[in-house]
Amino acid sequence: MTSLSHPDLAGALSGRARQMTASTIREVLKLTQQPDIISFAGGLPAAELLPVEAVREATGAVLDRYGSAALQYGATEGHVPLRQWIADRAGITPAHVQIVTGSQQGLDLLGKILIDEGDTVLVESPTYLGALQSFQPYGPRYVQMPTDDDGIDVDALAEMLQHTRAKLLYAIPNFQNPTGRTLSLERRRRLVELTAEHGILVLEDDPYGELRFRGEALPSLYALALEMGLTPDTSHIIYSGSFSKVLAPGLRDAWVQAAPPITEKLVQAKQGADLHTPTLNQMIITELLPTLRQQIARTVGLYRERADVMVRAMQAAFPADVRYTTPEGGMFLWVTLPSADVDTTALMVRAVERKVAYVPGAAFYALGGGHNTMRLNFTAASPEKIVQGIEALAATIREAGESGAAASTPVVV
Amino acid sequence: MTSLSHPDLAGALSGRARQMTASTIREVLKLTQQPDIISFAGGLPAAELLPVEAVREATGAVLDRYGSAALQYGATEGHVPLRQWIADRAGITPAHVQIVTGSQQGLDLLGKILIDEGDTVLVESPTYLGALQSFQPYGPRYVQMPTDDDGIDVDALAEMLQHTRAKLLYAIPNFQNPTGRTLSLERRRRLVELTAEHGILVLEDDPYGELRFRGEALPSLYALALEMGLTPDTSHIIYSGSFSKVLAPGLRDAWVQAAPPITEKLVQAKQGADLHTPTLNQMIITELLPTLRQQIARTVGLYRERADVMVRAMQAAFPADVRYTTPEGGMFLWVTLPSADVDTTALMVRAVERKVAYVPGAAFYALGGGHNTMRLNFTAASPEKIVQGIEALAATIREAGESGAAASTPVVV
Repeated sequence: MTSLSHPDLAGALSGRARQMTASTIREVLKLTQQPDIISFAGGLPAAELLPVEAVREATGAVLDRYGSAALQYGATEGHVPLRQWIADRAGITPAHVQIVTGSQQGLDLLGKILIDEGDTVLVESPTYLGALQSFQPYGPRYVQMPTDDDGIDVDALAEMLQHTRAKLLYAIPNFQNPTGRTLSLERRRRLVELTAEHGILVLEDDPYGELRFRGEALPSLYALALEMGLTPDTSHIIYSGSFSKVLAPGLRDAWVQAAPPITEKLVQAKQGADLHTPTLNQMIITELLPTLRQQIARTVGLYRERADVMVRAMQAAFPADVRYTTPEGGMFLWVTLPSADVDTTALMVRAVERKVAYVPGAAFYALGGGHNTMRLNFTAASPEKIVQGIEALAATIREAGESGAAASTPVVV
Repeated sequence: MTSLSHPDLAGALSGRARQMTASTIREVLKLTQQPDIISFAGGLPAAELLPVEAVREATGAVLDRYGSAALQYGATEGHVPLRQWIADRAGITPAHVQIVTGSQQGLDLLGKILIDEGDTVLVESPTYLGALQSFQPYGPRYVQMPTDDDGIDVDALAEMLQHTRAKLLYAIPNFQNPTGRTLSLERRRRLVELTAEHGILVLEDDPYGELRFRGEALPSLYALALEMGLTPDTSHIIYSGSFSKVLAPGLRDAWVQAAPPITEKLVQAKQGADLHTPTLNQMIITELLPTLRQQIARTVGLYRERADVMVRAMQAAFPADVRYTTPEGGMFLWVTLPSADVDTTALMVRAVERKVAYVPGAAFYALGGGHNTMRLNFTAASPEKIVQGIEALAATIREAGESGAAASTPVVV
C-alpha cells in the first residue's frame, strides 16, 4: 500500500474563504439550543402559524395536476404561474421577476453580478448581518449610512454622496432587521431621487413589508420609482421579496424584481449557483397564494400581540435609561443599553445563565460599533415566555450595570 | 413630478457578470421546446420513473412526524438523519457531509471557497459545462487534461504536472458528462496518488455512479484515497453526490463529502448563499431512502434498454465513419463526426428542421475545440422516439457530409 502525503487543506482555501468567519448569530443560536432557554435570538416565524395542513393539501393538488413535472428539472427563471402572480401584483411582467431559493440567494447572486472588488456599498448602521455575509466574498468596501428613528438619514446621505462614489445602496425600508425601524415616506422619495441622481443602484430588501400590525402601509422604493417616472425596464431599484415570513421559510422561496439588464444576468448567475429553485416548492407556494391574505392577517394579529407584550414587559422591568424601538410591524426590536462600556456580546454568557438569549448588536455593524446594543425577536416565543424572558434579561442588564463585569470578560460567542 | 434620470444598468454589472454568457445548452433547450421535437439534448431523467406516489406518501409522513418543523428554518449543514445516512454509507461521520441544493450548488460553493483568481483548475476535455459555469465567476485558469476511452490519460497528466502547478482537479469518473466514459480502476489509483503527491485537491463529481447498467462497479476516488491510507479528516478528495438522478431532480437535494477544513468553510459559504437547503425536501428525501435500491434498479433497467436501442439504431443508420461511445451506465453518449470541418453547432438548425435535437459538443470544452462532436441523452425519450430521432439525425449527418454546408453557416444556437 502506498502511503499518501497529507495535503495542506486549509492552505488550499481561497482568499475569499479565509475572510469568511463563523457568524455570531450562528454561534449564538448554538448556545441557545438548550430547550429551557427563552430565545429572542432567532428570526423564526411563530411555529404555530406555519400552514402544515395547507401544505399537505397543496402538495396533493400539485402532484395531481402536474404529476412527474413537479419532480423534474424546471426553468431557471422559475415557475411561470408564480412569476406571473408576482408580476401582476407589482404591475410589471414576468421578465422582471426571478425566483430565488430564499431571499438570501437573491443577495448572493446580486452581490455576484454587481459587486467588483473595492466597489462601495452603502449600508445602514446597523444592517442585516446576512447581507454582509452574502456580499463579503465579492470584496465590497462598506460605507455606513447614519440612521435614526425614521431609518436612513437622507440629508446626511446627500452630504456623504458629495464626496463618495457608490455602486450599490442596500436598505430594508420596512421594519428593518435588526432595528425594527421604518423609513418615512418623505425619506423614501428623497432616497429614490438621490440614488437616481448619483447613478447608484438600490437593493430594497423587503421580507417583512406585509407584516405591518400598526400604522399605514408605505409604498416600496420600487413602486415609488415607477410613480416618479422610471419604468420597470429602466428603474435602478432592485426589489427583493420573500414568502418565508408570510408562508413558510423551510420552503425557501423568494424573488427579485428588477430591470432586464439585471434579471438576465441573474438567470445566468443562478444557473451556475443551483440551476433552479425546487420545482415542487414553487408549485406548492403557487397553490397557497389564494390563502395568502388570510395567512398574513393571522400572522399580523399574533405578532401585534407579542410585540405589545414585549414592549409592556420592557416598560415594567427594564431600568429607565435603557432605550428600545417600538416597531409597527416585522419581527424585531432593538435595545440600547445606557453605558457604552457594556458589551452585550460578553453579557450573553450571563443572559444564557439566566435562560434568556438575544443577538448582540455588534454583529449587525459592517464597520464595528454597537457594543451596547442587542436585537430581540418578538415572534417566536409565547406571551408568557416573552414576559419571563424580558424579566430575566432585565435582571441580567441590572447586574451588568452594577458590576460592570460584562465589559471586562473577553468571551467570544 | 420629478423626472428621474435613467441609470446605466448594464454599466453597473461586475466584471464577473460581464464574463457570464447565456449557455449554449440553455439556448438549445429553448429551440427544442417545440413539442414535436425529439430531444436528445437535455439531461433529464425519464419522467415515467419519477416517484410521484412515493413523494405524496412521504410528504404526508413527514408532515405527520415533524409538523411545523418541516416548514421552519433548518440547520445550514442539513437535516441530521440525511447526513447520518450518507455518512454511514461512506464510512465517515456527519461532520464530513454538507447538504446542498442540487450538486450544482456544491460546485458553486466549492469554487467560491477554493478558487482564487488565476488558480489553475484541471478539467477533462470535454467536461461538464455546468461546472465551468459555476467556477467561472471565481476566475480560474483552465487547463485541459487529455482523455481517451478510459477517461483521463493519467500518463499525460503526470507529464503535465512536471511543469504545471494546479489548485484543483475536476473529474467525473463514472459515465462522464458529456462523453459517457468511465475512468478505469488502474487510472483511478494513479490519479489519487498523483494528486496527493502534487498537493492538488480533487473534486470528484459523481451524479451518475449508481446508474451502472453493465460491467462492474468501481470504487470512487474518495473511497480509494481512504483505502490508500488517507482519512476522512485528511483526504484531498472532495466527493459530490446527488439524489437528482436516482430520486427526483426537482427536489434539488445533493451533498458534498470532504475533510472538515473544507466542510467548515462550505457551511459558512452556504449560509451566505441560501441559508440552508429546503427543510421539507430534505425530509422527503430521507423518507424515500428505504425505497432507493428498488428505485435505482428500476432506473437502471430502463436506461440499459434505452442505451441499447440508441446504440443499435446508430449502428444501423449512421455513416460507418461516425464514431460514438457505448457507455456502461449514466445518461449520455458522445458522437464524433468524421470531418473536422463539420460544425455541429451550425448543424443544429438542420437537425431541428428534421425534428431532432442534441447538444453541440463544443459547449463542453473549457478552451475550445470539439466542433465536430455532439452529446446525446438516451434516458428521456421512449425507445420508439429514440429510433426515429437517430434516423433523423443520421439523415442530417449524411446531408452535412454531402453538402458541407453546415460548416459555412455562422448560426449561433
